[in-house]
Amino acid sequence: MQIAILGTGPVGRALGRAFSAIGHGVVIGTRDPEQTKQREEWAGLDLPLAAYQDLDADAFINATNGQESLAALRAVGDALNGKVVIDTSNALDFSHGFPPSLFVSNTDSLAERLQRALPEARLVKMFNTMNNQVMGNPRVLGVDSTIFVAGDDVTARQTAASLAADLGWADVFDLGDLTAARGLEMFLPLWVRIFGQLGRAEFNIKVVR
Amino acid sequence: MQIAILGTGPVGRALGRAFSAIGHGVVIGTRDPEQTKQREEWAGLDLPLAAYQDLDADAFINATNGQESLAALRAVGDALNGKVVIDTSNALDFSHGFPPSLFVSNTDSLAERLQRALPEARLVKMFNTMNNQVMGNPRVLGVDSTIFVAGDDVTARQTAASLAADLGWADVFDLGDLTAARGLEMFLPLWVRIFGQLGRAEFNIKVVR
Repeated sequence: MQIAILGTGPVGRALGRAFSAIGHGVVIGTRDPEQTKQREEWAGLDLPLAAYQDLDADAFINATNGQESLAALRAVGDALNGKVVIDTSNALDFSHGFPPSLFVSNTDSLAERLQRALPEARLVKMFNTMNNQVMGNPRVLGVDSTIFVAGDDVTARQTAASLAADLGWADVFDLGDLTAARGLEMFLPLWVRIFGQLGRAEFNIKVVR
Repeated sequence: MQIAILGTGPVGRALGRAFSAIGHGVVIGTRDPEQTKQREEWAGLDLPLAAYQDLDADAFINATNGQESLAALRAVGDALNGKVVIDTSNALDFSHGFPPSLFVSNTDSLAERLQRALPEARLVKMFNTMNNQVMGNPRVLGVDSTIFVAGDDVTARQTAASLAADLGWADVFDLGDLTAARGLEMFLPLWVRIFGQLGRAEFNIKVVR
């Protein structure tokens, strides 16, 4: 499958490497490809870059910072129509110090905001509850843990779940419609505290049932 | 240890039975003991009842509905001073339908509100991330899962962790100060969605690390 990943940060790079390594076609979207190529963290990374407005793919992954996600998706534009758009972003706001708060939560979510802004895209919330080192390589933890999917389109959720399975995720938990993204995004403050106490990001939760 | 549990609902009854069964002294606090004794769900339950204002114990557990917790703790009053007070409550608000929202979250938490109202109590958030059927009987799930503690007083966290261990909890995760209660309470919307999809409450999360 041809996958376009929006965002050149750690999440975009990790997912780009992971999907490319298992044989999917990957292109990374960014505002300014020439500028991105000159960045230190891009050295040695063999992934094609394209400007947001030039992207086309079977599925898209939003791996931008939550504050920038709406602008990035809008820059891609009509190419998103009808496509599965996996949203990995979080609404973390560190501007008031630690612990971080969320800039949208409780009665709404970042994913729902993005879906409302792009009604023709088939948004699926996935990957946002774990660090990028775990997303593309679930086996790094030694034992199975859980990845969640939520979205209004059931076939889009199935496509996202299938992509997760391609990466080795054995426990893909379907939470139903996109209002479940509230719970997935509101997990982040707990994630941040677990991270703080462990002192490392290689962890995840497993739904024991 | 003598434990006073505030609240006669499913959480209070389950924790009362569980702590009593392993040899702790348990008394259940309620507004009106005579009225509680006449309630159908109290039949056959061999646990002593006392009015909130008559409670005294080594440790207290708030098992009241989140909306009523502040009034219940205030009714207990000075007996809480210096004591470990384990807060199991959640800020769930179902008044606007499904999915529920939280009536306090993100930059504050119910536990922090209670601690501010009762500065002499040594508040610890624990038990709020799971159903009452799991709290007192973690082995019901077959494999280990995680229980969290958060609170400003480290010895109070240790006391709470020790009480959890008494019940069979093998993975007690210390999250540090009480601001971590935000994350623990904000986990509830995800809990509710997992519950909805599984169709049963006997589940919990494990921090895989």
